[in-house]
Amino acid sequence: MGEGDANPSGTTPAQDPERQPGSEGLSHIETGQDGSTHARMVDVGAKAVTPRSAVARAVVEFPEGLLGGLLAGEGPKGPIEEVARVAGVLAAKRTGDLVPMCHPLGLDVVEIAFEDLGGDVLEVRCRTACQGRTGVEMEAMTGAAVAALTVYDMTKAASKGIRIGAVELLEKTGGKSGTWRRSEDDRSA
Amino acid sequence: MGEGDANPSGTTPAQDPERQPGSEGLSHIETGQDGSTHARMVDVGAKAVTPRSAVARAVVEFPEGLLGGLLAGEGPKGPIEEVARVAGVLAAKRTGDLVPMCHPLGLDVVEIAFEDLGGDVLEVRCRTACQGRTGVEMEAMTGAAVAALTVYDMTKAASKGIRIGAVELLEKTGGKSGTWRRSEDDRSA
Amino acid sequence: MGEGDANPSGTTPAQDPERQPGSEGLSHIETGQDGSTHARMVDVGAKAVTPRSAVARAVVEFPEGLLGGLLAGEGPKGPIEEVARVAGVLAAKRTGDLVPMCHPLGLDVVEIAFEDLGGDVLEVRCRTACQGRTGVEMEAMTGAAVAALTVYDMTKAASKGIRIGAVELLEKTGGKSGTWRRSEDDRSA
Amino acid sequence: MGEGDANPSGTTPAQDPERQPGSEGLSHIETGQDGSTHARMVDVGAKAVTPRSAVARAVVEFPEGLLGGLLAGEGPKGPIEEVARVAGVLAAKRTGDLVPMCHPLGLDVVEIAFEDLGGDVLEVRCRTACQGRTGVEMEAMTGAAVAALTVYDMTKAASKGIRIGAVELLEKTGGKSGTWRRSEDDRSA
Amino acid sequence: MGEGDANPSGTTPAQDPERQPGSEGLSHIETGQDGSTHARMVDVGAKAVTPRSAVARAVVEFPEGLLGGLLAGEGPKGPIEEVARVAGVLAAKRTGDLVPMCHPLGLDVVEIAFEDLGGDVLEVRCRTACQGRTGVEMEAMTGAAVAALTVYDMTKAASKGIRIGAVELLEKTGGKSGTWRRSEDDRSA
Amino acid sequence: MGEGDANPSGTTPAQDPERQPGSEGLSHIETGQDGSTHARMVDVGAKAVTPRSAVARAVVEFPEGLLGGLLAGEGPKGPIEEVARVAGVLAAKRTGDLVPMCHPLGLDVVEIAFEDLGGDVLEVRCRTACQGRTGVEMEAMTGAAVAALTVYDMTKAASKGIRIGAVELLEKTGGKSGTWRRSEDDRSA
Repeated sequence: MGEGDANPSGTTPAQDPERQPGSEGLSHIETGQDGSTHARMVDVGAKAVTPRSAVARAVVEFPEGLLGGLLAGEGPKGPIEEVARVAGVLAAKRTGDLVPMCHPLGLDVVEIAFEDLGGDVLEVRCRTACQGRTGVEMEAMTGAAVAALTVYDMTKAASKGIRIGAVELLEKTGGKSGTWRRSEDDRSA
Repeated sequence: MGEGDANPSGTTPAQDPERQPGSEGLSHIETGQDGSTHARMVDVGAKAVTPRSAVARAVVEFPEGLLGGLLAGEGPKGPIEEVARVAGVLAAKRTGDLVPMCHPLGLDVVEIAFEDLGGDVLEVRCRTACQGRTGVEMEAMTGAAVAALTVYDMTKAASKGIRIGAVELLEKTGGKSGTWRRSEDDRSA
Repeated sequence: MGEGDANPSGTTPAQDPERQPGSEGLSHIETGQDGSTHARMVDVGAKAVTPRSAVARAVVEFPEGLLGGLLAGEGPKGPIEEVARVAGVLAAKRTGDLVPMCHPLGLDVVEIAFEDLGGDVLEVRCRTACQGRTGVEMEAMTGAAVAALTVYDMTKAASKGIRIGAVELLEKTGGKSGTWRRSEDDRSA
Repeated sequence: MGEGDANPSGTTPAQDPERQPGSEGLSHIETGQDGSTHARMVDVGAKAVTPRSAVARAVVEFPEGLLGGLLAGEGPKGPIEEVARVAGVLAAKRTGDLVPMCHPLGLDVVEIAFEDLGGDVLEVRCRTACQGRTGVEMEAMTGAAVAALTVYDMTKAASKGIRIGAVELLEKTGGKSGTWRRSEDDRSA
Repeated sequence: MGEGDANPSGTTPAQDPERQPGSEGLSHIETGQDGSTHARMVDVGAKAVTPRSAVARAVVEFPEGLLGGLLAGEGPKGPIEEVARVAGVLAAKRTGDLVPMCHPLGLDVVEIAFEDLGGDVLEVRCRTACQGRTGVEMEAMTGAAVAALTVYDMTKAASKGIRIGAVELLEKTGGKSGTWRRSEDDRSA
Repeated sequence: MGEGDANPSGTTPAQDPERQPGSEGLSHIETGQDGSTHARMVDVGAKAVTPRSAVARAVVEFPEGLLGGLLAGEGPKGPIEEVARVAGVLAAKRTGDLVPMCHPLGLDVVEIAFEDLGGDVLEVRCRTACQGRTGVEMEAMTGAAVAALTVYDMTKAASKGIRIGAVELLEKTGGKSGTWRRSEDDRSA
């Protein structure tokens, strides 16, 4: 984009992480003429609009025996999960407002699901998808993290031993780097 | 508060978690006259305004050898930490906008700090404080979580092996339940 | 507050609606020196901090026979009400962000409840309370309205005949004008 | 979208309300494998991008004789309508932030207009349009509702008898279900 | 768009500023049937999606000798610029939330850069770009202004003499009116 | 506040700008044990709650002869000023959301006023006040800046020569440093 003398930074062109998958390149960092480094938002204007999806998970770990009670029959399972689902969906939609270098995206869907993994661990999964110029991994991570924070908020009165044990990407599809899935032996909790 | 016939719910009075520390009571859940449960925001109007603080931590785990490079000398350490700090401070201030049943609070301070724990683990700590009617634990948890999400966002191009390994409360002070600290042997990472 | 020559408007002093209950005074409008009128946010700095509460209601009207199905046994009642409750609580907390001349308030509680009034009408009630310098009527109105919009959003696929039939204040307490309740014969729906 | 074992919910596929107009299907509710129901955001990724518009109305009802004064000559009509218009436009743009299961949309226009219907009733109309994968009905409803809440806020000091009498969809165009208009005999107020 | 009797305003059609560059037409103002004027959001639905960019600048003026210290060696330059950059990027992304008649846009990039112009003046430049139906000038202006406000906030304790000396558009590209650049002799500071 | 080993940063204590008025101290910057500097939010928990106010101004400069037309008789003056007023009031209320190191404040009032200074310059003044632990200067600066950005947005179609000529603090009252007023010979425009 010919900015001419109005070019605001005179920096090295953005590295496209999708051009060098697995590289050490930090797409969100650039080096100025004086050698100092600063943050940057990647310019995705030249990328193609393609379907993208991502799935992330967060796990909430409970002291022994507590989660079973929370999930049992007439218990509060419904409200806890429903409130956490809404919080996660809303947070995923505002990822670009929370994570500074993320692009605003028009998500086609945000899906939050819960699973009792046993061992007093509740898994929160967040799936996001859009057709866009950049991936939706951060939207899935943010949705899962805020849903887990909400589960914690709604149960923390029962025990301070409750904690969030992990927030991690499970899968992404679309974009130049295509599909990636976390291998089973790289699973936490 | 005598709502008379305008009382909107006819539910059991709120349980104050601080009145029964460590109890199984879920302050954010109440049971209606029909036995169904639903979420609720605790009414803190009768609580005293006292100084409150909390410290939470999130840890970001990196593949072997990667973190050292990120933190080295002239490297991008500065921008990554500074952007993550700003994201965490802003997120802590809007906790009541993200976690549905949290109260809006006028925080006196949000402090974010980073420490290389060794073993390719970066710790993000968030301290929050206010004088208010309810605790600031969720503000500290949210600030730490969003700062960690931002570290992840700014480094994920280097490796998909990066993950957030834990988000947990370390300490709280103030309120009826007073001071609590997580015991060393209950530390993650 | 002696603004001296920096006083930005040279307008007539604010009318305090609570000083003339039921008057025709519009506290949010002021008249400039040129006779033109413009909006204003009331300066509440001189008011006392007192406990305040308000209850508002919104009613969602359904085509004959539809609401019964939505509320029946294993039906979707839970998710609809829980999602609407969360939306109403979050909206009430950000009233000052939505209704321009409202003051930002640190609400002590937002409570949303649902009642089947019969005649295919679902009532959404929102109670808000704080200790502050101004009332929480708009917070209750906004919470009820957004909860009702969410009920509409989650049921509109079933029939375009669904509509919101009213949003109105039922009660307020606190402040100079004290307690007010809508009289029965002034009830809608 | 082949989520494989990462599919977060194992639920019945979304019902597209536009495929069965007028059906009892609740697109925002899905049934899990355990028979429980929960909320969901409809996946619109497979829908075509088409021009969409909607018009909604809210009516504000005033005690006899009050509205005429508000709308007269040099009166505050201008500020009240202008502030309410801005509030409605801003609210319509953030509908996806307020109504949890709504998609974020890039609206092409939000138009707010006011009409004195006589009988002390002020009508607020909101028209929204975009080219997108889902309708803009909720954006029009939200814009009309928040504009009406703002009219109420700016006039409530004159009388507590003021109320919002209805918020309803008048028209939608675009999408598989095409154009719909509310019939005259289905008009409120 | 055939709104028929649901057309909410019956106003003169929008003037497209890009059709009469430099004209006196105010695209955000329309005249109603009663001759009164009110604000409006331009309907961009009929415009083509084209690549758009803009560059704006804000300058922060410091008392003699102060800026040099702030920018020197180990000084706080890094944090001040990094925090202001993040604030500017986030603000540019939410321009439609701040400037009422702006359209929500999915920006492809926001770039913030700083330059010491000498004479104790720090320039903040913000470049924005997207492919859309309307320009990104306001996004660039908003990003530059909020970044400058943040520089002011972080340095104001050093001297109340610090001020923002200008916020102005430098360049725009794309759209019917094509490329425009501010001429050198029209530069401030 | 005895954080003990949970103290997240081990930094030098905050400098209180109000303790050294006019000093070179940068309250928003602190130096870590490794000599690196980073941003910080000042901890105001130990400060007294006192009445605070501030007035800031922004000036919008127009090409010769244009402003007179905008302000004339039946012209669009009303809508432009009213929309800008609302934008400024809303922005001032969310200052803590825009300027990262600002504290969330419960403002008692935000007042926006406009004055034609002659010479084709429109002045926007913003007065803010609260009773709090920290000043409201940034709220006044932010309200004035966003109101000016909105005036620019609503008039820019008339001429690209329009620019914001200054954003500066005029006055503050309250806090340890008491009252300060900008001297006349330090006025811009």
